[in-house]
Amino acid sequence: MKLIVAVVQDKDSNRLSQALVRENVRATKLASTGGFLKAGNTTFIIGIEDERVDPVLNLIRENCKSRQQMMAPMSSMGGNADSYIPYPVEVQVGGATVFILPVERFEQF
Amino acid sequence: MKLIVAVVQDKDSNRLSQALVRENVRATKLASTGGFLKAGNTTFIIGIEDERVDPVLNLIRENCKSRQQMMAPMSSMGGNADSYIPYPVEVQVGGATVFILPVERFEQF
Amino acid sequence: MKLIVAVVQDKDSNRLSQALVRENVRATKLASTGGFLKAGNTTFIIGIEDERVDPVLNLIRENCKSRQQMMAPMSSMGGNADSYIPYPVEVQVGGATVFILPVERFEQF
Ligand code: NI
Ligand code: NI
Ligand code: NI
Repeated sequence: MKLIVAVVQDKDSNRLSQALVRENVRATKLASTGGFLKAGNTTFIIGIEDERVDPVLNLIRENCKSRQQMMAPMSSMGGNADSYIPYPVEVQVGGATVFILPVERFEQF
Repeated sequence: MKLIVAVVQDKDSNRLSQALVRENVRATKLASTGGFLKAGNTTFIIGIEDERVDPVLNLIRENCKSRQQMMAPMSSMGGNADSYIPYPVEVQVGGATVFILPVERFEQF
Repeated sequence: MKLIVAVVQDKDSNRLSQALVRENVRATKLASTGGFLKAGNTTFIIGIEDERVDPVLNLIRENCKSRQQMMAPMSSMGGNADSYIPYPVEVQVGGATVFILPVERFEQF
């Protein structure tokens, strides 16, 4: 048994939740914010048998992988005219940071 | 030293908190939501000496054990006339999912 | 690789966040409340290489160490005249509870 602790961007959180439910993987979500990331993120904790760790990591990779995305000019900046960029820019979105922890004992009541 | 991570239904969360305080067990509560459970839940993290793990697990079992409960007809469904059940039904409430993690080192500042 | 789980008072949370960013340490913050502490607290989870554990613990100690602080009479009590204390009192503030957990595997997507 392992405890997977996965920090994912809010943007990908719902999609990952749905994928986990579809695959019958029980997850608990904790509201979290990052030190670096401006955007909010969600921390998933998932208790899982050893042999299902890799399939769950694949699910997380597929649904949360860091990727480039075009962002429309209007939404790219905070409204300051000086920092306005009049053309679409490519930004990095998504990404997941995942820790796999050993579990010494597991109980369900 | 172990770190107990316990996911319990909000319904049982206050009762467990009070029981832990009574027994002088320090716990931190994280707001959480479940992947499966519709109801909100709370994640307790409890750092505890090895010899107190079993007593704390007993506290969690006593206060959060999954059990059947009669639910009045009016509150059983979402208001859809088709799904209205005109008699009390027994539903499962409570339950706790508990992971016991090894702690390599513990510091208090 | 280790996972540092640090519970700190909200009072010190921003200062610790800034210190971690300055030192290029990635942290995730979880909103949390304590069983004992009346004040809110924040739980930091920090994944870190083994050799950086001690520097990070030093940062936490420097920014969150438990300490005495004088509290003005007006703010010391809840507004009840009976419990009003007409002189400054020294109260204990801050403090951090820190668990260092072994990490079996770490992935970034
Ligand atoms: Ni195992
Ligand atoms: Ni121990
Ligand atoms: Ni290591």
